[in-house]
Amino acid sequence: MPESAAPPTTDLASLLRPGSIAVVGASANPDSPGHDYLRCLVEFGFAGPVYPVHRREPEIRGLKAYPDLASIPGDVEFVISCIPSGGILELLDACAEKGVRTVQLFTGRFSETGREEGAELEREVLRRVRAAGIRLLGPNCMGLHDPGWGISFRPDLPRRTGPVAFLSQSGNNTTEVLLHSDVRGIGYRAAISYGNALDIDEADLLDLLGNDSETRVIGAYIEGVRDGRRFLDALRAAGREKPVVVFKGGRTGAGARSAVSHTAALAGSSEVWRGALRQAGAIEVHSQDELIDLFVAFTFFPQAPAGRRVGAVGGGGGRAVQAADACTEEGLEVPPLSDDIRSQIRERAPDLWDWIGNPVDQSILAGAGAGVSGAAVLEMMLDSPQFDLLIANVGEDWVLGRPDSARRLNHIVERFAGIGRRSQKPVAYVLGPADSPDEERWRAVEQARTLLVDAGLAVFPTVERAAWALGCYVRWHEGRA
Amino acid sequence: MPESAAPPTTDLASLLRPGSIAVVGASANPDSPGHDYLRCLVEFGFAGPVYPVHRREPEIRGLKAYPDLASIPGDVEFVISCIPSGGILELLDACAEKGVRTVQLFTGRFSETGREEGAELEREVLRRVRAAGIRLLGPNCMGLHDPGWGISFRPDLPRRTGPVAFLSQSGNNTTEVLLHSDVRGIGYRAAISYGNALDIDEADLLDLLGNDSETRVIGAYIEGVRDGRRFLDALRAAGREKPVVVFKGGRTGAGARSAVSHTAALAGSSEVWRGALRQAGAIEVHSQDELIDLFVAFTFFPQAPAGRRVGAVGGGGGRAVQAADACTEEGLEVPPLSDDIRSQIRERAPDLWDWIGNPVDQSILAGAGAGVSGAAVLEMMLDSPQFDLLIANVGEDWVLGRPDSARRLNHIVERFAGIGRRSQKPVAYVLGPADSPDEERWRAVEQARTLLVDAGLAVFPTVERAAWALGCYVRWHEGRA
Repeated sequence: MPESAAPPTTDLASLLRPGSIAVVGASANPDSPGHDYLRCLVEFGFAGPVYPVHRREPEIRGLKAYPDLASIPGDVEFVISCIPSGGILELLDACAEKGVRTVQLFTGRFSETGREEGAELEREVLRRVRAAGIRLLGPNCMGLHDPGWGISFRPDLPRRTGPVAFLSQSGNNTTEVLLHSDVRGIGYRAAISYGNALDIDEADLLDLLGNDSETRVIGAYIEGVRDGRRFLDALRAAGREKPVVVFKGGRTGAGARSAVSHTAALAGSSEVWRGALRQAGAIEVHSQDELIDLFVAFTFFPQAPAGRRVGAVGGGGGRAVQAADACTEEGLEVPPLSDDIRSQIRERAPDLWDWIGNPVDQSILAGAGAGVSGAAVLEMMLDSPQFDLLIANVGEDWVLGRPDSARRLNHIVERFAGIGRRSQKPVAYVLGPADSPDEERWRAVEQARTLLVDAGLAVFPTVERAAWALGCYVRWHEGRA
Repeated sequence: MPESAAPPTTDLASLLRPGSIAVVGASANPDSPGHDYLRCLVEFGFAGPVYPVHRREPEIRGLKAYPDLASIPGDVEFVISCIPSGGILELLDACAEKGVRTVQLFTGRFSETGREEGAELEREVLRRVRAAGIRLLGPNCMGLHDPGWGISFRPDLPRRTGPVAFLSQSGNNTTEVLLHSDVRGIGYRAAISYGNALDIDEADLLDLLGNDSETRVIGAYIEGVRDGRRFLDALRAAGREKPVVVFKGGRTGAGARSAVSHTAALAGSSEVWRGALRQAGAIEVHSQDELIDLFVAFTFFPQAPAGRRVGAVGGGGGRAVQAADACTEEGLEVPPLSDDIRSQIRERAPDLWDWIGNPVDQSILAGAGAGVSGAAVLEMMLDSPQFDLLIANVGEDWVLGRPDSARRLNHIVERFAGIGRRSQKPVAYVLGPADSPDEERWRAVEQARTLLVDAGLAVFPTVERAAWALGCYVRWHEGRA
């Protein structure tokens, strides 16, 4: 595909953190992307000059607008285009004239339409940007979400910054992942919806993010790659530095067909992908939930676990059994309690010590005067060399509906959070989802989760998902040892 | 284990739908099971007489209390015991004297403690109930939740009745499943937490529920069985009548060890279970989420699908690709649109018809004047002999955050629901979870889901879970053909 060589990618800052931005196709209509991009630059606090470009409007959202790029008095490093594809070649010529460095094309209807005229226009776009030395993100993409740099594409996206970078061929997917991971406390270095990947592609982005010292976790939703060898080199290089989690779209015939009409991607065989990802040290996932669960694990768990031995507390007897099954099926170990912990429990609960196991069935301890709490045993596990990984089931469904439930739940969560804060071992908390039509219940669970998330702790909605994430995390670290 | 033969199980009504109930160990303390059981009988509207039994209190929650069973003037068919295990033999003798038919023992600390004295007491309990011809539920169980008969064990459990029966060795698990499935519109014929299964066991309950004409779907959380052959016979018989979904706890060594201290269950090998369940025609699941997803599928999908061909609409291009992949990986087919549907679309959207595929990428249709909506294509799929199964992605994350989002979301959901209401094909709706700390967003998603659920429609939180449930549903029906 390259008509002439692309300029080498350098670092995130020079390519995707511009000092000045023009929005071409800016709009006063609050229900249009040309309005959203502008509004985001203002509301996310972009520090440099912002130039709306519109043929007739003198002002949009209180910002002075310009009829074209040439009329803008200052430098323009970055252009966001929302105009229809018919005007795109003219715009690129104007960008070249103005010395623009990077162009982001929300503009779509190129090769993804499956029509020859769209594909031909796309090829011409590439020729022009290559000739002008301009880098291009898209077309057919939502583009950058970089809350730390004051750029986004939807005003309702979260402002939270953090160590995760997500590159995605799907704008909608990017929106969903950002919203649903925010609830789990995930902050972003950058999320980059890159659409048809005409110029800047997954390999470029992996290079950029692999070398970016503030990016600690990389996620990628990829429908197809243009240059398999370059992609795998970039993946391997990035994977040496940090965990790279890949959600491959178009794994099946129908999925691949769908990917063609989405981003004109050539999806490739599922088996080839699976093997290649494994060899490159990447972790393959098959849903947004799995992607987000691993963002949580790699963001909040400490650097490397000492082993595979899980200690779990909280929830009733059923939950204890489920935790043991789920962990074991993920290849983790769930050893019985050590003599040391058993004798500590014996001192405090002479009536129960011989009955309590690992996982700890909270309902055994629920009676009045049990002498020992789930949190107390969690603390013993934290301090014991017998356990490498911990699971803390909040068990909120049991607490809610009891008298004084808000205070009780808060007490449990505070106590659990305190243990997590001082833990050098990964602790997976199980809580939620806060998915209830009952407002009080919803609020109680949201508050509990916010408390954990604000303490920098990893929260999972089910014990099975917690076990799965722990398993992936352990295997990834073992693969590097 | 049987010391003398158990009386034959007959029907649900005679065993578990008593005309009169005594709660022994009733309590005025609102934070105790002895209070909860009583309060539930009142609040769930149990129609027969309710007798609190307490040594000293003359009245509890406005009901006249009795010092013992013998003092109760009327018949007592059913006894719920919350007293400590030390008083249990005396109570059983009093039950025999009074002519009680069924005893439910919340009372625990029997064989599940792992102590010989607990096991011995349990054996003696069995001898006494067998000698007296009393049937016993438990010990160490929460017991019945039968909102249609006015019985439950927690005041905060849902009142919704319906065609699902759930038997579970874990009380906590029962609570969780009831709460999280209510959100999805699942109503219960009965949920039965049966603990240590000393007398009434999984085989009895499968017999009862298999023969119960109002039960259309059976779920079971089982940690171990006492009589494998009898269990498999009961499972096979029930499975001939209706779908039986089994969540087996204690599949692994650690899980089995945990099950022993939970319900004294002998868990058995995972491979043996897997094979036996398959042979008996049951569907095995590995989490509460899977269990609930199948309750939704078998409650709301019509009787039998005509085939495996899926049509899907809604959500952006990434969602379309994910839907195609997930369905294909579940063994379903995702064919391209038929010429007939393509020509219908062509008439209304001459600019887009050649670009739209199956799944339908909603973002292609989102532009003004597209001429055809996702719902319109869903309707074409509904009327076309080309499709057997439908997926409707609500795509609420894209709508929310747009201007006028509440009205728009409501419009989409109303339109989708109208199609589902008249559909003879299963339609899986994808929406949620309503898991956001933002109150407006939470409320919008909850309202949308409530609208779908109240229309008797199947809602799944992700497209992967929708595809998985459709796959299980199709395979189950194919297995019976």
